[in-house]
Amino acid sequence: MPKKIIIIGGGTAGASAAFAARKADRKAEITVLEQESYPTYSRCGLPFAIKGIIPSLENLIVFPDKFFRQQKINHIKEVTVKKIIPDKKTVVADQDYNYDSLVITAGSSPVKLPIPGIDLPHVLTLRTINDAKKIVESAQSSKSAVVIGASFIGIEVAEALKSKGCEVTLVEAARTMWRVVDEDIGRLINQHLTEQGIKILEKSLVTGIEEKKVLLKDQTIEADIIIVSAGVKPNVTLAKEAGLDIGQTGGIKVNERLESNLKDIYAAGDCAEVVSALTGEPILIGLGTIAARQGVVAGANAIGGDKKAPPVLNSSILKTFGLEIGSVGFTEQYLREKQSGKLDPVSMLIKYPSLPHYYPGGVDIHIKLMADKKTHRLIGAQLLGKTSIAPRINTLALAVEKGMTIEELTQSDFCYSPPVADVWDPIAIAAQAVSRKLEKI
Amino acid sequence: MPKKIIIIGGGTAGASAAFAARKADRKAEITVLEQESYPTYSRCGLPFAIKGIIPSLENLIVFPDKFFRQQKINHIKEVTVKKIIPDKKTVVADQDYNYDSLVITAGSSPVKLPIPGIDLPHVLTLRTINDAKKIVESAQSSKSAVVIGASFIGIEVAEALKSKGCEVTLVEAARTMWRVVDEDIGRLINQHLTEQGIKILEKSLVTGIEEKKVLLKDQTIEADIIIVSAGVKPNVTLAKEAGLDIGQTGGIKVNERLESNLKDIYAAGDCAEVVSALTGEPILIGLGTIAARQGVVAGANAIGGDKKAPPVLNSSILKTFGLEIGSVGFTEQYLREKQSGKLDPVSMLIKYPSLPHYYPGGVDIHIKLMADKKTHRLIGAQLLGKTSIAPRINTLALAVEKGMTIEELTQSDFCYSPPVADVWDPIAIAAQAVSRKLEKI
Repeated sequence: MPKKIIIIGGGTAGASAAFAARKADRKAEITVLEQESYPTYSRCGLPFAIKGIIPSLENLIVFPDKFFRQQKINHIKEVTVKKIIPDKKTVVADQDYNYDSLVITAGSSPVKLPIPGIDLPHVLTLRTINDAKKIVESAQSSKSAVVIGASFIGIEVAEALKSKGCEVTLVEAARTMWRVVDEDIGRLINQHLTEQGIKILEKSLVTGIEEKKVLLKDQTIEADIIIVSAGVKPNVTLAKEAGLDIGQTGGIKVNERLESNLKDIYAAGDCAEVVSALTGEPILIGLGTIAARQGVVAGANAIGGDKKAPPVLNSSILKTFGLEIGSVGFTEQYLREKQSGKLDPVSMLIKYPSLPHYYPGGVDIHIKLMADKKTHRLIGAQLLGKTSIAPRINTLALAVEKGMTIEELTQSDFCYSPPVADVWDPIAIAAQAVSRKLEKI
Repeated sequence: MPKKIIIIGGGTAGASAAFAARKADRKAEITVLEQESYPTYSRCGLPFAIKGIIPSLENLIVFPDKFFRQQKINHIKEVTVKKIIPDKKTVVADQDYNYDSLVITAGSSPVKLPIPGIDLPHVLTLRTINDAKKIVESAQSSKSAVVIGASFIGIEVAEALKSKGCEVTLVEAARTMWRVVDEDIGRLINQHLTEQGIKILEKSLVTGIEEKKVLLKDQTIEADIIIVSAGVKPNVTLAKEAGLDIGQTGGIKVNERLESNLKDIYAAGDCAEVVSALTGEPILIGLGTIAARQGVVAGANAIGGDKKAPPVLNSSILKTFGLEIGSVGFTEQYLREKQSGKLDPVSMLIKYPSLPHYYPGGVDIHIKLMADKKTHRLIGAQLLGKTSIAPRINTLALAVEKGMTIEELTQSDFCYSPPVADVWDPIAIAAQAVSRKLEKI
């Protein structure tokens, strides 16, 4: 009899799991249960569709219905799962679905701030295509906007609204992009956003929202449109009710095969806890890349495979108003304050041109590298610049992943030609700076 | 008494050695003996100065005289070394120079083709600022050009002359860029160059040169200007005469500390043999990056340090008419024909867009990856595309350097955001393709 695979959620992790399961087993009955009315689309593309760079929200669809049909995957939309009954290997939704293996890729939802007025109709969040439609519609009649939360989505939405003609204020309870960069890089981001006309209020707690008003402790900001992007939380209610272990981070606990504590139930993507490649501690990271890679592992294992999901580094990148900001690993601040000394970062932030001084078009690359004081291993990197930051993040992710020391990095065999790279890449220059600092310790 | 360091050659390796020696010893007497009339400049920048992107050849100077003065390095120009007398620890040039340590960074010279007419005055090569001046002057009155040799410099000069209005024919005895790419990638390069109006003749041996004519076996090409870029050979005459061991590649034999067989004599840069990180065999690679890194090692060791020059990967990059072409390691052809089975390459060439399908501005990236059949380790990469090839070469160089398997590469924690990178980088897609091929073997 063909195996029955049920996948809850048709986002990046869910679709990857479905296709991986199909690749491993041509006969399995694979069903994806999706709440939304669209097939798999790129959530990360939503802010750019709002901005208008991408002509239509429908363009964001990555796996259209026919992909699922071609792969003989039963993709059911607009269906809400009510219950998982592990003892009966059944998922209850519009009907009962029996499974041999279940993959939970339920994703995450925007955090709802516990403040008065958060439910007012002009207070919006951005998670789905329908959310984006509401923002586009609302922006048409808006002259001013407040975006609450200066993380990836917050900044991308701020840029989109600014480009649509709104005066935008970005309000952040902590500091800009605090999860992925330190204060020194954060200041450079703020400077750039301010130059682009975004007003930034850091360390500003929103105390309430009224009709066209955002209330802070010491001031009130008028806003026709208010977007809350105060982080996400994993969707684990179904899993919890079914008896799955939830980790200390709030995500579903899984092993490296992405199995939960219950037999034949896997979890992947935003709703699952991952392990830090640097510290071994459980962390929650809602990134599309990790969802895609985990989906492949969970889907293959659900069909009887034995794939392992490697620990993660939290490699991330943002491009806003022409500036790229990237990060690998934890921030220095996090390692000092929260991580109780397992890793002891020694860091340097340098600025170095992307091209030789004599070749036109070079721009400054800011690079902060961190090495562990004891082992000299590269443990983190934060980069900022107007070109080629993303591929440099990838280079540094590999270096961290493979346990490279900062001294090895100074001698890496990087390429050079005046129109594209200098004799010493900024990465090597930054590594030299950290190496010199370590020599003096 | 302060140590006396003599450095023969003030190019990239020589200058790096001088500055590294100074850094290690504030009191040493450091003397650089340079044949040319300029301080250290970027040879790799010469074609772009000819093209006119860089306004003046003098812009190419990387370390002007005042740098050497500030560092109290005695930089003597227009001086020819006649002899090294190791027994007396003396270098004979315009005067006798005694040394405690000698660093030979004598560089390389263009290969002189053994054909009639090679000494005609309108037959030029490109190695020095003075060579570039001659080409610029000659190009002003030229309508047609033949460039002999389709390697890095040949292609860059062809582009420069084309942009100055010449009809350019590129004649190559073997095939385009055969040292660093395989025929499949070579064909893509030819297609691009042809689209840009460069005429390419592969497998065409030049049999002679006459006044304004290049003679091939079966045809004659008229040319107002003829540039020969048929590779370089290391400058080892002085070293040989002094009793230094010359390796089978024709370069000076050195150990990992860059010491020659004679006490207190080091060699670095184009004139020295290097070790392949992939095969352990001695190879000759005339790259500025290796010269810079080796200079640092030789200079530090000349002063009593103990640095090691790591083996090399031959990471290289070219940008021509907007297209970047990069390579790490040997070609598949080389590994099959010359390397007698130590590494057994399994390769795939794929094409994948640089950005998600829905985001405007993505371009095709062509990636060929090679894994060793037995170990599955990544052993080589060749890339071609209109954006971000150089930093991808650096990522792949690290992957090769750290012995990554192709399977590890498929799961690397790369970053993603629609304006700069897709969920799966083309590198990961290529790794998946090689991994699937290996599974079937």
